[in-house]
Amino acid sequence: MNSPRIILLAHGSSDKRWCATFEALAEPTLKAVSGSRIAYMELAEPSLSTVIHEGVTSGDRDFTIVPLFLAAGRHLRKDVPAMIQRLEETTGASIKLSPPVGEDPLLGDAIRDVVALQIGQYSNR
Amino acid sequence: MNSPRIILLAHGSSDKRWCATFEALAEPTLKAVSGSRIAYMELAEPSLSTVIHEGVTSGDRDFTIVPLFLAAGRHLRKDVPAMIQRLEETTGASIKLSPPVGEDPLLGDAIRDVVALQIGQYSNR
Repeated sequence: MNSPRIILLAHGSSDKRWCATFEALAEPTLKAVSGSRIAYMELAEPSLSTVIHEGVTSGDRDFTIVPLFLAAGRHLRKDVPAMIQRLEETTGASIKLSPPVGEDPLLGDAIRDVVALQIGQYSNR
Repeated sequence: MNSPRIILLAHGSSDKRWCATFEALAEPTLKAVSGSRIAYMELAEPSLSTVIHEGVTSGDRDFTIVPLFLAAGRHLRKDVPAMIQRLEETTGASIKLSPPVGEDPLLGDAIRDVVALQIGQYSNR
């Protein structure tokens, strides 16, 4: 059995600069994880539907969606699960939704490092 | 001259779970950087206005806002700069707005590590 295809899911925006930031955020993962892709919930392409349909067409059946969100709001609690249910029904694929990346402690550590680099030191270390 | 107070700015939500995720994201920074605080743009407390006013009251004049956002949309391009301008006018403080944390390559690397841990390996390394 093949491992599931990883899909990094960003919200999407009509603002190209916004999407460019997410493409840069996704790049290390896309380089490291074979077959992984980025997809957008809305307002930008490729959409989640496009990426799932293309994957199914090329023989994949199992997908894991990793949301490029810091926290879970309405989109991840309601909208994305509803999209997943429809896509599973229409394609026969199996689609797992991971927690948003921001729920992983690694992100908090990275934010600390970003701030520390900005201020040039850890103030109380 | 004191170094600027670091304020981690999250969007805010009426959903306590959403705020709890941002408090967890902020925790490593709040522990590492003396005097740093979290603030919310809207829908949750402490607001940015509250944190700036409290800082000014206790003698701070320089603040650096680090947005806990993955990318800059309308909020960071328009709403937050407008809030900063009003707060500078009303308090006399000097407030710098940093890029959103998601624009730092460290975040993309952390996301790669989150995904790699989820799948148990780097598929093509």
